[in-house]
Amino acid sequence: MSAESRFLTLLRLLANDPAAQGLVDDVAILPVGGERLILTSDTMVEGVHYLPTDPPADIGWKLAAVNLSDLAAKGARPIGCLFNYALSGDDDWDAAFLEGLGEALSRHGMPLLGGDTVRMPDGAPRSYSLTAIGEAPATVPTRAGAQAGDILYVTGPVGDAGIGLTLARADPEAQGPLVEAYRRPRPRLAEGALLAPVATAMMDISDGLLIDAARMADASGLAVVIDHIPLSRALEATRGGASSVRIAAARAGDDYELLFALPHGVRPPVHAIPVGHLAPGSGLTLMIDGAIMPLPPQLGWEH
Amino acid sequence: MSAESRFLTLLRLLANDPAAQGLVDDVAILPVGGERLILTSDTMVEGVHYLPTDPPADIGWKLAAVNLSDLAAKGARPIGCLFNYALSGDDDWDAAFLEGLGEALSRHGMPLLGGDTVRMPDGAPRSYSLTAIGEAPATVPTRAGAQAGDILYVTGPVGDAGIGLTLARADPEAQGPLVEAYRRPRPRLAEGALLAPVATAMMDISDGLLIDAARMADASGLAVVIDHIPLSRALEATRGGASSVRIAAARAGDDYELLFALPHGVRPPVHAIPVGHLAPGSGLTLMIDGAIMPLPPQLGWEH
Repeated sequence: MSAESRFLTLLRLLANDPAAQGLVDDVAILPVGGERLILTSDTMVEGVHYLPTDPPADIGWKLAAVNLSDLAAKGARPIGCLFNYALSGDDDWDAAFLEGLGEALSRHGMPLLGGDTVRMPDGAPRSYSLTAIGEAPATVPTRAGAQAGDILYVTGPVGDAGIGLTLARADPEAQGPLVEAYRRPRPRLAEGALLAPVATAMMDISDGLLIDAARMADASGLAVVIDHIPLSRALEATRGGASSVRIAAARAGDDYELLFALPHGVRPPVHAIPVGHLAPGSGLTLMIDGAIMPLPPQLGWEH
Repeated sequence: MSAESRFLTLLRLLANDPAAQGLVDDVAILPVGGERLILTSDTMVEGVHYLPTDPPADIGWKLAAVNLSDLAAKGARPIGCLFNYALSGDDDWDAAFLEGLGEALSRHGMPLLGGDTVRMPDGAPRSYSLTAIGEAPATVPTRAGAQAGDILYVTGPVGDAGIGLTLARADPEAQGPLVEAYRRPRPRLAEGALLAPVATAMMDISDGLLIDAARMADASGLAVVIDHIPLSRALEATRGGASSVRIAAARAGDDYELLFALPHGVRPPVHAIPVGHLAPGSGLTLMIDGAIMPLPPQLGWEH
């Protein structure tokens, strides 16, 4: 058992309130005064979740976006957030970070309500947390509700952010839609709100299509078949559309598209691309152009 | 203007929702479905907010306690928290941290609802955040409501944690009530709930009696006179009760007693010690044994 697994096991023992949902979902659901709140918190660490050379405004944007994406996956409406910031020692850097954070928050109607600002010892890696609060829709989709026969969809192509990260790592000055996908992900709040009443299961793809689809299937007690890996035109133009490129795209994280299941015959209320289906049994099957492919040794970003 | 001041100025521009209260208080107040939530978040950083030699269970306890203390200062009832943890690379250390955190949370009826666990790069200082959510009482006390003539009280003696820190720094194995006050502060939740309906102003003493009293007076547009600095028997036994000891105690942070103002003639509904009064004007006056004392160059812990 990895250190994180052992720690999470201990955490789950502690998080025994029903609102915590056993920590198996990305969010908590807290009933308050006749409503239900969706609560989520994400930390980003320099050198772990982003490159030290990424522009500070983009890092600020992304911290907001990844938390908003967790709300989107529940169809929640953002109502407030708290922000924990470690001053970098560079005033202009900090101001630019805040500008990017503020841009993402205002773009998505998320008020900043409070938080804490601390100083880190010299030389420490930068790290930040955001805690996001949303108002839950009448029906909150989970990962666990998919039914055998459901069709699995994504709200957009996958893999752009993964290639964007590779490009940004090779050249911090790199530009274009792939680097933009990595640095400025768009949380699918509108799509999430429209999908919440109809999706049998939903989550955001933060760690990669394959691993997140496998998690949804596992939580739902089902098997999943992925038979299509949609690529963007920008990605195909850069890397082509070979199987190896598709598999890499399906293992790449950080895209923040929504992955959701709908009963066969139900038309998605938003733009969506079918990527497979749920079936009785367990495990993940990957097909490309109708042929079953061996699974890659690592399905996605495990953390 | 310090880096933190500049950053806070920018943050305040961004936090323009009424629930944020201009970030001048330690908490946000968010209306939800006919109730009001109190939201607060605190980060603790190794070497900044605690000693690297402090026992991990005590650090975990303290992270919970400082956030619970912010709820106590509003008379709020804890309803849930989210926890952001950076794995230390030492499983036993992490498990002990969680044990202390869990002990403080269960002792104070605070459910753990979720959060995020990350890995830090090797050698990075440890850091953790907790975001606490409480249910607000009918009347939420602020720092700003004190009236001229109000008597100022504390719920207990001050300075123990400051001396405890000094003792723990000199000898990590040190024990006793002063070290305990530093490592295991007790959030005054019961007192806060009883005081909320009657206090004209209230806050917790996290940075020191003098600086926090000055902040309350400033927020209330008043002057404050501190004419008594209550010391514990343990502190007097260790350091004596000279003026210099009292002033040091009034400049020491981390005690987490509540500081509150009551109209003259109103009897405190909890055990409390009068320490001074509010008066028209502005500024802080310190008196010991009836004599006005020069103010120390630094009133408390500024961060």
